[in-house]
Amino acid sequence: MMALTSDQLSNTFAALADPTRRAILARLMSGERSVTELAAPFEMSMPAVSKHLRVLERAGLIERGREAQWRPCRLEAKPMREAAQWMESYREHWEQRLDRLGDYLRQSTPRAARNRKKK
Amino acid sequence: MMALTSDQLSNTFAALADPTRRAILARLMSGERSVTELAAPFEMSMPAVSKHLRVLERAGLIERGREAQWRPCRLEAKPMREAAQWMESYREHWEQRLDRLGDYLRQSTPRAARNRKKK
Repeated sequence: MMALTSDQLSNTFAALADPTRRAILARLMSGERSVTELAAPFEMSMPAVSKHLRVLERAGLIERGREAQWRPCRLEAKPMREAAQWMESYREHWEQRLDRLGDYLRQSTPRAARNRKKK
Repeated sequence: MMALTSDQLSNTFAALADPTRRAILARLMSGERSVTELAAPFEMSMPAVSKHLRVLERAGLIERGREAQWRPCRLEAKPMREAAQWMESYREHWEQRLDRLGDYLRQSTPRAARNRKKK
């Protein structure tokens, strides 16, 4: 079960590791789209866009209609939410780390530099 | 600038697309570790673990000390936070989608099945 979830997470992150695929997902947030509509903003051949769609489909991030001739693409929210939850579970740690870094930088600013800023 | 951010995001997601690398990051949450310490829980050769560490280092998710002989690994929080922010910016959309799906499933449950549950 653990392995299954891990694989799904790996597939989700791998699918997100491309700016075109992230842009496609962003467009699908507003509703379902045909492949032609999705391809329009990219300077890319239809086969190249179709390849990206297949990666997204295999990762379960989108679904393609079987009924209509134009096979509309729509977003599948669940895997994305699982990936967000994985990141969320560690968020507290990063925030603490970034806060500590901020504190360190403030404390280590030389007094002379701080005085200069005051003037 | 946009392209740079996109590349960083792609590198972050690509680095996260592996269960071993995610486990290494999880271990580093509690503090810096040597490569030997990081390798211990995995049934993996040191070169294999080193390869994963290089991927994490190139993506900027970890930093390796230059000073000590054992070159401790430590977490770099910033790229992870940026990836979490990217996901967060779309969260509202997924949540709405999942809520709508839940409503649909509740409404489309046949009355007979619901009555059966009541008994």
